[in-house]
Order: sequence, then C-alpha cells, then structure tokens
Amino acid sequence: MLLKVLFCPTPLSLNMTLNGTCLALRQVGRAASRLPCRASPQLLGLVRRCSITTSASNNKGNPRQKERVVILGSGWAGYAFANTLDPAKYERIVVSPRSHFVFTPLLASTAVGTLEFRSVLEPVRRLSGVNFYQGWADDIDFVRKTVRAEANTADDLASKTIVLPAGGGNYPKQPGIKGEVFDVSYDKVVIACGSFSQTFGVDGVREHAHFLRDIGDSRRIRLRVLSLFEQCAHQRTDHNASAAQDTESRRAGHLTNEDRRSLLHFAVVGGGPTGIEFAAELHDLIYEDLARIYPDLIQFVRITVYDIAPKVLPMFDKALSKYATDHFARQGINVRTKTSLSRIRLAPNDLGREHGGLTLTLADSDSTEIPAGLVVWSTGLMANPLISRLASKSFPLSTPSSEPPSSEPPSPESSLALDPKTHLLLTDSHLRARVNHPSDPHATLDDVFVIGDCAVMESQPHLPKTAQVASQQAVYLAKQLSARAVGKKTFKFRNWGTLTYLGGWKAIHQSSADELKGWVAWVIWRGAYLTKSMSLRNKIMVPFYWITSWLFGRDISRF
Amino acid sequence: MLLKVLFCPTPLSLNMTLNGTCLALRQVGRAASRLPCRASPQLLGLVRRCSITTSASNNKGNPRQKERVVILGSGWAGYAFANTLDPAKYERIVVSPRSHFVFTPLLASTAVGTLEFRSVLEPVRRLSGVNFYQGWADDIDFVRKTVRAEANTADDLASKTIVLPAGGGNYPKQPGIKGEVFDVSYDKVVIACGSFSQTFGVDGVREHAHFLRDIGDSRRIRLRVLSLFEQCAHQRTDHNASAAQDTESRRAGHLTNEDRRSLLHFAVVGGGPTGIEFAAELHDLIYEDLARIYPDLIQFVRITVYDIAPKVLPMFDKALSKYATDHFARQGINVRTKTSLSRIRLAPNDLGREHGGLTLTLADSDSTEIPAGLVVWSTGLMANPLISRLASKSFPLSTPSSEPPSSEPPSPESSLALDPKTHLLLTDSHLRARVNHPSDPHATLDDVFVIGDCAVMESQPHLPKTAQVASQQAVYLAKQLSARAVGKKTFKFRNWGTLTYLGGWKAIHQSSADELKGWVAWVIWRGAYLTKSMSLRNKIMVPFYWITSWLFGRDISRF
Repeated sequence: MLLKVLFCPTPLSLNMTLNGTCLALRQVGRAASRLPCRASPQLLGLVRRCSITTSASNNKGNPRQKERVVILGSGWAGYAFANTLDPAKYERIVVSPRSHFVFTPLLASTAVGTLEFRSVLEPVRRLSGVNFYQGWADDIDFVRKTVRAEANTADDLASKTIVLPAGGGNYPKQPGIKGEVFDVSYDKVVIACGSFSQTFGVDGVREHAHFLRDIGDSRRIRLRVLSLFEQCAHQRTDHNASAAQDTESRRAGHLTNEDRRSLLHFAVVGGGPTGIEFAAELHDLIYEDLARIYPDLIQFVRITVYDIAPKVLPMFDKALSKYATDHFARQGINVRTKTSLSRIRLAPNDLGREHGGLTLTLADSDSTEIPAGLVVWSTGLMANPLISRLASKSFPLSTPSSEPPSSEPPSPESSLALDPKTHLLLTDSHLRARVNHPSDPHATLDDVFVIGDCAVMESQPHLPKTAQVASQQAVYLAKQLSARAVGKKTFKFRNWGTLTYLGGWKAIHQSSADELKGWVAWVIWRGAYLTKSMSLRNKIMVPFYWITSWLFGRDISRF
Repeated sequence: MLLKVLFCPTPLSLNMTLNGTCLALRQVGRAASRLPCRASPQLLGLVRRCSITTSASNNKGNPRQKERVVILGSGWAGYAFANTLDPAKYERIVVSPRSHFVFTPLLASTAVGTLEFRSVLEPVRRLSGVNFYQGWADDIDFVRKTVRAEANTADDLASKTIVLPAGGGNYPKQPGIKGEVFDVSYDKVVIACGSFSQTFGVDGVREHAHFLRDIGDSRRIRLRVLSLFEQCAHQRTDHNASAAQDTESRRAGHLTNEDRRSLLHFAVVGGGPTGIEFAAELHDLIYEDLARIYPDLIQFVRITVYDIAPKVLPMFDKALSKYATDHFARQGINVRTKTSLSRIRLAPNDLGREHGGLTLTLADSDSTEIPAGLVVWSTGLMANPLISRLASKSFPLSTPSSEPPSSEPPSPESSLALDPKTHLLLTDSHLRARVNHPSDPHATLDDVFVIGDCAVMESQPHLPKTAQVASQQAVYLAKQLSARAVGKKTFKFRNWGTLTYLGGWKAIHQSSADELKGWVAWVIWRGAYLTKSMSLRNKIMVPFYWITSWLFGRDISRF
C-alpha cells in the first residue's frame, strides 16, 4: 500500500532490477523529504498534494477556484499551519522575511557545532504546493482583504534577529535596503508573525550583543567563539607570565594574560531556557573540544549567566531550578541572579579596537565594569511592531467585502482589540481576531486569525509564549479550517512539559504529570525533539551529527 | 594490536561493559580524526605523536631540543608536508592566513550544496603537535633565519580568495585591517604559500566576479545562486507574459521576463577543470533540484563557459575534450571558446542596483554587452607577491648563521634565483631554493625549501601547477627530511592522471596509461577522491552527504 502510493506521483514501472530499486529509493526519499513528518497519514496524502501543486501552477492568473489563505510568518505557528492546512481545500501563500522555518530548540547546538546549521532548517519552498513570497508584512487592509508587504530577498538580513532601535523607528527596513512593495489579496489571513527581541532599552545591545533566534545569529556566534580562541592563542608563549612579562607583552602589542581573561569571558544575559541551554552547550564545546586544541587557554575561560530575577529558569519548580544551578556551579558556570546590565560597549582600548572586546556595565550602585569577548542576549520578547500598526487602523464594522465602500451610509468604525496588559492581539477561543464593537462584546473578524506569539486568547490569557503553544494553535486552526468547522470546537492547550539541557549530558524536565532530571531527562530530551516537526531528511541528519560530534569532536573550522 | 595502540594515549582500563565499549569507540574516533588518513602506519604512530605534543608544550620558552621547521601555507603543499614530517625529529610550525586546508577537488560540490562546506575542510589545529600562527608571511630574513608575518584572525577575509588590485599595491592587507606583526625563527623554512588568482587586469573582476578557491568563495556562490532564483520567483504571476505585460511589470517596479533571463544567466570564465566542473555541478543543481522548486524559471536559465583558447580542458586530448563539449551541448551548457572579456560591471539600471545584476563586455570588435546574474572567474594563476619580494632581497653568500653579521669582511651578496619565464622560485631537484652565485651555478640555500605552486624545479620546469604535484612534492620532502636524507634521492613526479566531472553523473579521466569516460570515469572520480588526503571524519561525511543529496535533493536554505 505504501509503495503503491509512493509510486503514484510519477509513472514508474516497478521493475526489480538494481537500477529500479535505486531509483525507487530516491523517489521515496525526495518525496518524503518534502512531506511533513508525521509519517503515515501524510505519506498517504502525497498523491493529492502533488496533483495540487500542478493544478495550482496551472491556475496562475486564472480566477481562483479555491479559497486563498495568506499566512504571515514562517516560525512555529506559520510553518506548522501551512504544513497542516488541507491543500485540496485551500490555496496557501506564506509571506515571511525568512525563507525557512528554524527548529529553535536545537539552535544552541548549531551555535557550538554539535549540529550542522542546515539540519535545524526547513525551507518553506520545500512545502509542496505552498506559494512563498519573501518579505515583511507591513500592513493589512481588512476591507479590501489585502496584505501589503515589502520584498526582502537579502538573505543575510533575513536570517538574523532584527532588533528595533530605541524609539522603534526604521522598522523593518535596514539602512540602505528598500525592497519592492507588493500586495497579496486573501480570503483568509493568518497572522503568525511572532515577536521581537526585548532589549529593555539597554545601550549597546543592538550593536554589540548576539541574539540566538535565527540561523544567522547562530553562525555568527559560532564564528566568534572559535575566533576568540584563535586570537588568544596567537603568540602565546608563556602561560604563567608574571606581571612584568605581561607589561612587556603589552608594550610589544601582544595580548597579555589579563587580555585573554577578558576576551574569554562569555556573558549570557537572561536565565531562561535559551540562555541556560546556550551556556551549557558552550561549556560542552569548550571543555570537550577546545580544551584539547587550546589546552593553555582553558585557565582563562569564564562563562557567566546574568539574570535580573532572583532565580533562573522561572518555569521550573524550586527543586529543579536548584538542581540546574548546582549543576552549573559544579561545571564552573557562574550564575549571577538579581543582576542587570545598563550598558554594553566596545572596550575603550586596543582590545576593543583590534579584537572586538566588550565592556559590560552592571546596573548596580557602583556601575561595575566587566570585560567580555561575547555577549549573548536572550532576555525575552516584545510585541512585533506590526501589531500596534494593525491595532491603530480603523475599519467599518460591516462584513468586509472585496468592493471598495460604496455611497451607502458609512458603518460605525471599529478596530482590532488589544490585550491591555501585553499589547498583543486578542482572539476568541477559536483564534479569530477580536474587534472593539460598541454593542457586541464578542465581535470578531471571521477571516482574520491570530496564532503564536502575537496572540492572546481571551479565554486563556496566560498561555506561555512558547513553541508548544504556537504549534498546537497552528495545527488546531489548520484542522478546523480544513474541516470547515471553525467556531465549533474551542482550542485546548495540552502541556507536554518543559525540557532544558544543562550540559554534560544532563537535562531537566517538568510537566504537570512528572518531573525528571539527570540522565533520564537527557534521553527524553534527545529523543523527543527528533519526532516533532522535522522532515525525514533532518530526522536522519540530526542523529547522524550527534554521533559524529560524539565520535570525532565538534568541527572547529571557521569561515 | 590496533586496540592496544589506540588505548595507550590515555590510561583506560579495557573493561568490556557497554560503557567501556562506547568510550573506547569514541576514543578511537577522536584520536583517528586527528590523524593523517593513510591508516595503519599513522595509527601506530599515535602514541609517539601524543607524547610529542606534551613535550612541545612543556618546552615553550625553553631552549629548543628539536630542529624547528616553519611551513608557510596550509594548502596542498603546506598541509601535506606538515602532516607527513616526523614529529619526533622536528618541531613543526605552520604560518598561514587560513586556518584550514581545503580539499579543492570537491569545492565546486560544496558551492551547489551536494556536499556540506565543512566536509572538505581539515583544520590545521587538528594536526596533533603542530603549532599554528594565523597570518600572512610578509618577509623572510635568510641571515637571521626569521619569518616576519602579519597576524590575520579575521576569518571572513581568511576564507576568501584575495585578489591583487591593479598595480599590485595594498597586499595582503585589506583596507582598515592591520594585524599585529610578529617574527618566527626557524632552522628550516618551507615556502608553500601557493599562487594568486590571475585577472589579466580585466576591469571589475576583483569587485564583481566570484572566485572558487576557498570555502568562503563557495559559500558566497551558493548563497548567490539560490538568492537569484528566489528574487526571480518573486511576484512571478505569468510565465508567458507578452511584451506589453512586461512593460506593465517594469512600470510597477517588478521584474520582467527579460530581467529574469538576465539574472539567471550564469557565466563561467575559464574552461579549465575548475570552471568546467563548476558549470557541470551548477547544471546538476538547477536541473535536478531547483527545477522542482521553481519550475516556471527553468526556461530563463542559461549557463555559459567563456574561454580565450580554441578548446576547453587543454590538458585532455582532443577526443576527450570533444566528448566534454558534446556532453555540455546536450545538457544545454554553452561553451564559447576564443572569447575573452574586457570588463565586468554592475548593470547600469535597477537590475544592477537592486538585484546585483552584472554586465559583461566581450573583447570583440563590437564590445558586445551580455547581462548575467553571477560570474565565476577561474582563468588561472599568477605568482604570489611574496615571491618577488623575496627574490628582490640580497643576502651574504656565506653560510647563514643565527648571529648578526660580525666585523669580518663582508661576503659577496646574492639573492634567490627566479625562473625567467614564470617568475617563480627556482629549486634544485631536491626542492632546495636556488641562489644566484657568481661561480657556482648549482648553489642553493640548504635550509630553504620551496614546494607547490610557487616552485619551479630546474630539472623538471614543466610540471603543472596542480594539487597532485604539490602534494607529491610535500610528501617527498617531508620523508627526505624525516630520514635526514636531503640531497640523496631526487624528486620524481608520478602522474596519476586528470579527472574532470562533467555533470549528469559523467566524468572524463586521462592518464599516460589509459583514458576513460562516462560512467566508469564517474565511479573512479567519486571513489578516488575519498581515499586521498582526507581525515577519517571527512571520509565518512563525504559519502554520507552524497547519499543524502541523492536521496533528498540538495539543501536549498539560504543564510
């Protein structure tokens, strides 16, 4: 049965020669690599998907025969939605500044070289039958049912975290980059454009800190860490230099041991899962791999996690959080809670000019200054500026139509409803966008849906802003739309628990049902991620890289 | 026996529990990954190598106990030499601007995504016991036996082809980058710093063309090809647009089909193996993978190879060269021989400004202008500027000593001998640098060796500038030095034949003994590369990537 289905897309005669078998194997691989990953139901859907692709491309320019759903974003929410929505019933168009989905739980592993970058990416163009426009959604006209976007095919920009400048101006464009503006009309629109990184207005974060939300960030961090070691190794002749020798080195323009201590200080700001996992993975890289290659430098290495809160990993209970802190203490990773930064700048000496060394200023009474070679910033999220722009628009309350408003008496004006606390878009329990209505407190826009980080459900306002919530909302909504059953079943979040890797092959896991730590958690952690949201290709690649990194060490080449 | 040797470096008790076996496996893997690749003799040398590392690092700052060999360069010549020289007899220091060796025959495969970048790199730091300074050798003082170098830890610069500006100035530094200058003393120096890319002074090559000699080049080409397809796919609504519709598109700021035809023209300048293999691999990428993702764009694609000579692949005989040209013609790759370029510039319209479109000017009587989206330049090599700097130095003819010249009567001055035709360094048949001597026509500097692209052997002046020659010279010299037998056996080049991949799973192979083409050549091609010069890690990675690319298609994510 499986074979039969897999052979349908192209008329291959099922000959059993070696050649035939090879070709068949390849057919299966290539087809499956374009499929969503949850095995059999999707495999069986292959024939349908492929035929849709063809008919969709034939239909271009012709009147549309299927309802068009425009999806803004290609993160956990947008990608999972596009992947799940029935292509037989809807035309799917994804508009996103980045051309891929990033499997974020493994991003920290790519930043230290345990995994190769590509193994955590799923290109949107691999989703068979999905149309893709690479661009930033700038605005939505709810009356004409049109999304206005600015093209963005500058991939370097697209794959790194964009941070708003103080004051919020100049978004989303970068200086000198202006893409073509284009409109995409929709029958239904799904707003899944996520959130921005929060810098709390700390001076210098945007310019000097690294983020860890996209693959370009990860690549830059990997290069920087390895390059810092190379720079510190250069001309290293005596690892027990006296102060007098250090002065001599400095006079000769060489790095002193004090300089090495500054550059090999790795600062992580934010004690949530991203910050903690990065610190843990970095520790593994340094002590498992770099210690063999640069043994003399290990004495200078320090890793510090800064958090403003009294404890890290606030989503874990006290015991697990303490387990994490104790484990870090044993590994020599410093955790400084109740500490925040007021400024990051280039060190005002040769270290800054020639080696990119940084100076962190703590927001304590003494404005303590701390040198560092790398700052990774993961303090939290802020609303995507598109949200406030959409919320500031008013539109007539009558059912939106594709015709411009006629000479009829104008309907009362309304606007999208915002959650007063988070300033995110409010939705009803079916994820439809809520509008402010003078008489109906439950009014919604029936063709506008909001999922993921930019949505707050009126019925469950306290859902965390996590990948789990985003992907569950996406799958729920896609299924409801596919079944043409929107408004029937309400969304229910099922908490699969939270996992955080702590380095040294250990992790902690907590859910409503149980809590785990140590080896067991690590096994669950490694296993669980493989089965979720990944293509068959990456399901093979990820374990392969785990094995090769374990056998041969992480790769240290820099380019 | 093998197990015994492999367990020696660290005192592991050979317990047979699962844990023990896993750990042993990992030990073997990690150790082997640092070893040269020619299996058993090197495996047996492991214990010795490791102990050398330790003693070398303990000796730092102390008087040297072993002769120090400084190796300039980490390409085919330098890396193979450092890898082969006996660490028990010599201290090895590599000075090179790049921190890795690139397995160049597979570079074109990484530029199209058949292979992952890292699988063709071998970091110099993985060579156990080798000291490494990342920097450009700027000068050699043959009297004081010292190499002067400029540190270069800017990896982005280090991993891309550096092209000399017209006039040759500003080498090797790039604007704004000035590394620390440092000296390394030597007992013997091996000049293996390779050659530069030849641009024949064609205007705009340095600014707008891509080279394909290092991994950064490859990464940029891959990103550019994929990005061009994405840009051309954007807003593509009608693939049979009339001229009137095209005018309409242009007015709206969109790409026309004519624009797409310009941007999807891929020009390769130079019909040697590098250019031909890149064109072939690019063809495979486009027709095997991108055709599935961007089916509407394939009609606009053109690949053209330009060469000034009357035929491409001059190192192959007429029949094989014709086979290659016919194969390309069937694939639709244009080969324009007897054609050269006079200029490359950004297209003087929106295509140039917004999409990086280029205009090539042919050096024909009409100065024909041809649009292109990408130009890959591989026309040949020119002498490394270090060579002429070294040749312009004069030094006393007396035996060089480590003391500064005393008050004795000065010896007559001499200088390094250059090959009058190529302006490369002349060597004797033992690869020692030849000097100009008033009375002795065979005089050499006994502690200065030249191998690879920058050497011309007096006895065999017509050896090609290939990886084969470079690596054979390196291994020969390292063995002679290790055996303390320099001057006994002369270098003999053994021609293994030449292989060029032509795309569509076909290749041609020619040696003095035989010639092969088609499938058979392809099998040899794929197999042969695996067994040469690669670490165990990459011997596993390369076939793994071949299989996954074949099964799932090449990866198309861009970052």
